[in-house]
Amino acid sequence: MKKNDEAYDTGCPIAFALKMFGDQWTLLVIRDMAVKGVRTYSELLKGGEGISTNILAQRLKQLEENGIVSKTRDPNNWRSFLYELTEKGRDLAPVLAEIVLWSGKYNLGDNAMKGTLEKVLRNRSAFEENIRMGRIP
Amino acid sequence: MKKNDEAYDTGCPIAFALKMFGDQWTLLVIRDMAVKGVRTYSELLKGGEGISTNILAQRLKQLEENGIVSKTRDPNNWRSFLYELTEKGRDLAPVLAEIVLWSGKYNLGDNAMKGTLEKVLRNRSAFEENIRMGRIP
Repeated sequence: MKKNDEAYDTGCPIAFALKMFGDQWTLLVIRDMAVKGVRTYSELLKGGEGISTNILAQRLKQLEENGIVSKTRDPNNWRSFLYELTEKGRDLAPVLAEIVLWSGKYNLGDNAMKGTLEKVLRNRSAFEENIRMGRIP
Repeated sequence: MKKNDEAYDTGCPIAFALKMFGDQWTLLVIRDMAVKGVRTYSELLKGGEGISTNILAQRLKQLEENGIVSKTRDPNNWRSFLYELTEKGRDLAPVLAEIVLWSGKYNLGDNAMKGTLEKVLRNRSAFEENIRMGRIP
């Protein structure tokens, strides 16, 4: 695996899971949009796991082509773009929820983040519904 | 993305989903073990999406290191190995189930396989329980 395909270990349960079962960048981009409400390229670039700008650009293009992300001009800054999950993208909420639960069981590292896990454990339906409505869960 | 990182489109819902959100090989190996009951290297190599032997060897090693797959000598053929999901690997059953459901909604291709989708739709608990017990669901 190429060096620049490797993510930093931030302790996020989703990053933890995907580090184990393959390339993680695409789901990390989806996570940033779904769980953190990120909308811009520069915020996605600062996602925490150290994605490079060329990988981010490639993955966003692929997500757009696959109908998971939509890209629109920022009405407040015509030179910028806003990225949003489509319904198809937001429908990945249950996949994210299950990955979070699995990682919660198996990520025993000291740096394991528990915030999202607790939200899913407390009220999974609300977690998924918020993502489906485009709200931060 | 490298050419040899691309899977053939077999219509499998899990392959469909992962083609969209990143490198798919690792979860395809897990799928072959969990859903098809595959145990040997040569069967994994024939998984359908055209995994290469060097990628398969690398992914199996990584899965073993991460405690998701165990590797033992085949008692009937001492020169061969058997691969099995550990409890940690089998606990990915709900992730697989959600990916199958999502793909079932969005893979509208003529070659979309429906068998696993129907099993999950009919009785999701049984699907997951079978995987957790090491049975073909």
